[in-house]
Amino acid sequence: MTTPPGIADIHAAAARLSGLIVETPLIESPELNSRFGGRILFKPETLQRTGSFKFRGAYNKLSSLSAEERGRGVVAFSSGNHAQGVAASAAMFGVRAVIAMPSDAPAMKIGNVRKMGAEVVAFDRVREDRVAVVRPYVEKGMVLVPPYDDPAIIAGQGTIGLELLRQAKALGVSLDAVIVPCGGGGLSSGISIAVKDGSPPTAVWAAEPEFFDDTSRSLAKGTRVANEPGHTSICDSLLVAEPGALTFEINRKTLAGGIAVSEEATKQAMRDAMAHLKLVVEPGGCVGLAALSSGRIDLAGKCVAVVLSGGNVDFDAYAKIMAAAA
Amino acid sequence: MTTPPGIADIHAAAARLSGLIVETPLIESPELNSRFGGRILFKPETLQRTGSFKFRGAYNKLSSLSAEERGRGVVAFSSGNHAQGVAASAAMFGVRAVIAMPSDAPAMKIGNVRKMGAEVVAFDRVREDRVAVVRPYVEKGMVLVPPYDDPAIIAGQGTIGLELLRQAKALGVSLDAVIVPCGGGGLSSGISIAVKDGSPPTAVWAAEPEFFDDTSRSLAKGTRVANEPGHTSICDSLLVAEPGALTFEINRKTLAGGIAVSEEATKQAMRDAMAHLKLVVEPGGCVGLAALSSGRIDLAGKCVAVVLSGGNVDFDAYAKIMAAAA
Repeated sequence: MTTPPGIADIHAAAARLSGLIVETPLIESPELNSRFGGRILFKPETLQRTGSFKFRGAYNKLSSLSAEERGRGVVAFSSGNHAQGVAASAAMFGVRAVIAMPSDAPAMKIGNVRKMGAEVVAFDRVREDRVAVVRPYVEKGMVLVPPYDDPAIIAGQGTIGLELLRQAKALGVSLDAVIVPCGGGGLSSGISIAVKDGSPPTAVWAAEPEFFDDTSRSLAKGTRVANEPGHTSICDSLLVAEPGALTFEINRKTLAGGIAVSEEATKQAMRDAMAHLKLVVEPGGCVGLAALSSGRIDLAGKCVAVVLSGGNVDFDAYAKIMAAAA
Repeated sequence: MTTPPGIADIHAAAARLSGLIVETPLIESPELNSRFGGRILFKPETLQRTGSFKFRGAYNKLSSLSAEERGRGVVAFSSGNHAQGVAASAAMFGVRAVIAMPSDAPAMKIGNVRKMGAEVVAFDRVREDRVAVVRPYVEKGMVLVPPYDDPAIIAGQGTIGLELLRQAKALGVSLDAVIVPCGGGGLSSGISIAVKDGSPPTAVWAAEPEFFDDTSRSLAKGTRVANEPGHTSICDSLLVAEPGALTFEINRKTLAGGIAVSEEATKQAMRDAMAHLKLVVEPGGCVGLAALSSGRIDLAGKCVAVVLSGGNVDFDAYAKIMAAAA
């Protein structure tokens, strides 16, 4: 078993990323505060380089490789946000990147990866094995950059937790809870390490789409369980088969629990983000905001941070969801 | 003639607003930087309290009134952003607010003003005189809060200029130019006073919708000229008959010039803001970004700040513009 990263790894990642990442601000809305009865501080990683938090982990991972390793090029599989993070990082280091992406990934994500100079290999998300797709490149010597189950990736995402605590302190508040969108668990595990180190009483929650609530159910059961196959979701960035081994090893100790949200709640959250935060948030990036309406977290008089993890959504898909406002 | 505000008034406004406003961050996009060949720093006042910069001036104005004056209540006319700024400020001071709004103002803006407890009086933007609509309230003793032609309003908006210079300095850059959306000229005059004080070589430009380029033409002619009647524009927040007397007195000395942009360029800018900045920007708030494509400003190797002045746009209108992406 790989050793989980510690707080020192997250501080080291923050030092490497300093000046390269956007320190995303905390945004709040009087309207949403009033609706939920607490103070909700949104952390829009939508404003991060590449439009999602994934650049943090990917760049930290590439930084942790030797120059010789990096020189062989990097390969990754991703529905799009990790892909963009790896492509941007590889471009900054001037090394080759090959990314396997599902053929049904949002066109904006595929286009952005290509624009950054990476080679895209399309695969069928349902019928093909993503690991098998990248194997030939790994066998040629290219280095695999995993989407979440890797200490350097987790440490990079964890830098958001350091920022959250520092920014909350600057506002003179302490966080009762943090809600984090969860796919493979890299973001929630990284953030939870940082938050539990700096503020042990703060509860960290994972938010997931319905039918892809593997982390929620795994936390409840105490061991990793997979999702039932055959379901689909608009949350393209959160669709994994089961929690990562390393991420779950962390999350089972650090998380308060998981919350599954419906597709309609996610769409409503996207409209709330548009109307009240003026932020474009992709479906998977908005499940934390959707989870506020679940009733699972006590918000009355509390201060809760919600990570909006990405904003890479196609014009058409976004327009349809906005137009459906009641 | 009223005396224009000076830099000391803007510093005083910044002190009053401290802790109440969002210090909106500077956001940039590698994609847009590459397209324009310079470094473009966006100042999203979309993230400001009430979804536009207007809260700054309105709150500063209400602060400058005596308790007795404020107690009589405030009245304003506005297509929606100033209305929200005044309504929010009045709510914070606990005083009555009456706002005259055109009946064709975006529903989101009218709804937000009502939610903040202000009374809305609808009027016909083309056939009725907005000043006449508010006169009965002023005659009863309520204090008129003008949308732009007022020293305290201008000083409040000018606080954005102070932030721009401080934030640019923190990034280690100096600004070659600042582009500001312009209706009556309160935002551009306030920002230009602050920018010209702190960084005299920085050129400040006004961006306007086509057919409503009164400030551009007034600057070119050296005296105030009105817009030709009968035109319409999607930029509901920028539709005035002519520049303000006080704002133009300032702008004619401080601005480098004005740039008129087409409706199609404005819609494209809104799509660029969605795709590359993940920001929801209303039409009038996006004319500065649209002006980047005009060819009027030398961007090659330059550092240019663009104010995105507001994000209050209805779901349907926004969805239609997003869905029209090429």
